[in-house]
Amino acid sequence: MSSHSKPTSIGIGLLGCGTVGGGVLRLLSADPGRIAERIGAPIEIRKILVRDLKKNRVPECNPSLLTTSPGELFSDPSIQIIVEVMGGVDLAQTLIQKAISQGKGVVTANKMLLAQNGPGLFEQARQARIDIGFEGAVGGGIPIVRTLRDAFAGDRVQRIAAILNGTCNYILTRMSEGGLIEDAALREAQQLGYAEADPSLDIDGHDAAHKLAILAMLAFGAKHPQHLHIEGIRRIESVDIRFADRFGYIIKHLAIGTDMGDTVGLRVHPVLLPKSSVLANIRYVQNAVLLEGAALGPCLVSGRGAGDLPTAVSVVADILDLARAIHAGTPSLLTAALRLRDRTFSPIDDIESCYYLRFRVVDRPRVMARLAGALGDVGISIEQIVQQKPQHGTLPETDIADVVMITHAAREKDMKKALHNLKAQDKEGFLHEEPNVIRIESLG
Amino acid sequence: MSSHSKPTSIGIGLLGCGTVGGGVLRLLSADPGRIAERIGAPIEIRKILVRDLKKNRVPECNPSLLTTSPGELFSDPSIQIIVEVMGGVDLAQTLIQKAISQGKGVVTANKMLLAQNGPGLFEQARQARIDIGFEGAVGGGIPIVRTLRDAFAGDRVQRIAAILNGTCNYILTRMSEGGLIEDAALREAQQLGYAEADPSLDIDGHDAAHKLAILAMLAFGAKHPQHLHIEGIRRIESVDIRFADRFGYIIKHLAIGTDMGDTVGLRVHPVLLPKSSVLANIRYVQNAVLLEGAALGPCLVSGRGAGDLPTAVSVVADILDLARAIHAGTPSLLTAALRLRDRTFSPIDDIESCYYLRFRVVDRPRVMARLAGALGDVGISIEQIVQQKPQHGTLPETDIADVVMITHAAREKDMKKALHNLKAQDKEGFLHEEPNVIRIESLG
Repeated sequence: MSSHSKPTSIGIGLLGCGTVGGGVLRLLSADPGRIAERIGAPIEIRKILVRDLKKNRVPECNPSLLTTSPGELFSDPSIQIIVEVMGGVDLAQTLIQKAISQGKGVVTANKMLLAQNGPGLFEQARQARIDIGFEGAVGGGIPIVRTLRDAFAGDRVQRIAAILNGTCNYILTRMSEGGLIEDAALREAQQLGYAEADPSLDIDGHDAAHKLAILAMLAFGAKHPQHLHIEGIRRIESVDIRFADRFGYIIKHLAIGTDMGDTVGLRVHPVLLPKSSVLANIRYVQNAVLLEGAALGPCLVSGRGAGDLPTAVSVVADILDLARAIHAGTPSLLTAALRLRDRTFSPIDDIESCYYLRFRVVDRPRVMARLAGALGDVGISIEQIVQQKPQHGTLPETDIADVVMITHAAREKDMKKALHNLKAQDKEGFLHEEPNVIRIESLG
Repeated sequence: MSSHSKPTSIGIGLLGCGTVGGGVLRLLSADPGRIAERIGAPIEIRKILVRDLKKNRVPECNPSLLTTSPGELFSDPSIQIIVEVMGGVDLAQTLIQKAISQGKGVVTANKMLLAQNGPGLFEQARQARIDIGFEGAVGGGIPIVRTLRDAFAGDRVQRIAAILNGTCNYILTRMSEGGLIEDAALREAQQLGYAEADPSLDIDGHDAAHKLAILAMLAFGAKHPQHLHIEGIRRIESVDIRFADRFGYIIKHLAIGTDMGDTVGLRVHPVLLPKSSVLANIRYVQNAVLLEGAALGPCLVSGRGAGDLPTAVSVVADILDLARAIHAGTPSLLTAALRLRDRTFSPIDDIESCYYLRFRVVDRPRVMARLAGALGDVGISIEQIVQQKPQHGTLPETDIADVVMITHAAREKDMKKALHNLKAQDKEGFLHEEPNVIRIESLG
């Protein structure tokens, strides 16, 4: 009689069992045979850390595995991988550091933690020869981390231009396609659960900035970003969407990273994109990352940037990678691919761009000449200029007009100077509002 | 005095040194330090198999490594990875089989070979516990193989819809945006090197079909596709592009794979896509693969589908994966993820679709009624119908007209029946040409 030795299973400890954690449990239990075949051993959830033992959870969650004590996960030698889907920064970081120091692999979907302390965690993991998987931390279900880490291994990323915030993209899509005004689009996004009651993290650009910081680590090896310029979408009005459309553009909120060799520039702000751009058709809550490789050229990866199941797909893909490496006896294959170094960051003042400018002005003789003159004084030339009365009776004053310009390429610092001069010279107060300035990007 | 042991390098044998092979040499020599750091050991090209020792090659090609004898590569125990970029089927297959049988890892960019004999090679590699990397075989620089293999490991792919042929996409883009007629667009593509002198492999859809067959192995575990329906773009005329545009659509040549659970359907043909589809803005020679995951939802990966450097980026990414695994002592991690099985394939007759139909007819009373009647007889209902005289004096007869219809969803077999009946009943010969039938896909 021959005896077959049963392959040792790979044990998982789950930190958190909310929507993403529930999704992970569902996916892991959907086809365990296929997973075992791929890894060479089955995967088993051994413990699940939660705050509340009594809460209702997905049916795939075995209540006997729940615990409120982190120590139970760390003291269990049969747990080889810690999966952090609890969110928050401080406790999550403490638990991940503990996992690494105990030689356990880590999978996390925590973008805020990685944006703030990624380089430190990666360095700790590197020294401990432990893998950290974090596909779920950027762009939900979009396989952008492995694309940057593995597919671009033989190439050099020169630029990233990405739609990283589903809330902003939803609001802009509804304003553009549905004709909603900005407040109505935000309210609708909130009703549908795409925006928080306090939407500032999303619509002011901070969420996209966190993700860009992580992508810059992967793409440019850049730790501790400085001069990360952040603008949200609060100043985009329906009138801007309509003017952009008239000029052949669509307005998107982009995160842009550029590696100029000696310096790296990082910025998050709205842009005008040609309607033919591949990013123009990324609609509603979809996210997308457009990479520009020195050898590869443009490469786009797009999909659902948030949501329990898409993020869970990314977390599970990482779990399978780590489990396979642990079963084969070679963890730390992933971490070896992460090489961070101190890069020099350039401020947004150094960029060159074409600009869309909308001046809401008191319509007096020579106003247009003064606007154009202020630009000309600093050497900025204008490609198109349109003057139009505001529509829809939004403004009662009949002497208010919108003057919209598209400029040729200009330096950001010159644009700031021109706008500063305009305001300084505006003794009569013909500038009715702060000018709206949106950069134009001509992305494939 | 302490002595450091130099890490053993990973040796590469290159089969072929044409455009892709030259690109591989260039990328590998661009930053060898970074590559060595990633793998844990440097990579060294040890031998390069060519047909002609005298030919001019890229400066990164060391002439002393060239050989015309395959045996020199296989007998060298310091060559652990064979990289096949020579093309062709029979000799490439023989050499790859030999490499596997000698325990050497394999990287190939040979789509025709894998479409025909992939399952056999994968099985041989599996038994020998050898990795085969083939990212370069589908979609050039697009990281579609690793996305399907790794990112979707915890999910189930339900559908693939892909632009896989750059020649077709270039021609259709120029017809659509540049107003070129079909022959002029093809000639331009040939002049630019995007189409062969004999373009039939591309524009008749066979190249896209080869790639779809490989994607179906990865996505659906499907070996030996049957009922793979193939149509090219020869029947697409400018008038179809214009009608499609008028109805809000763009014409693209797509490869579509659908996993219905019990059966798999594979087809390659032109489609009408809504202009808002993310695939609509994939222009010129760009390729794109839109995946639909059960949990992930839609996911798009897009980029340069051909060309020496983009393909070389994919080949080098595979080389680095294999080298890292070999250095760590765990080859066959990749092959373990490939599980092929016999699937049942459904013929295109079983699909349901909306259709664009263009009938070029002799304009007589009741012609439109007869066309609509033939569809109604088999239960197909019409959403829109337009009759128009051909423009631009392409046809001298003044009594010729185009009748264009958009149908509601119908079964392919019913559509065939309707068209068969129409022709059978056309005693007077009012059908001036074979009707042009294009399926409509409503892809995100």
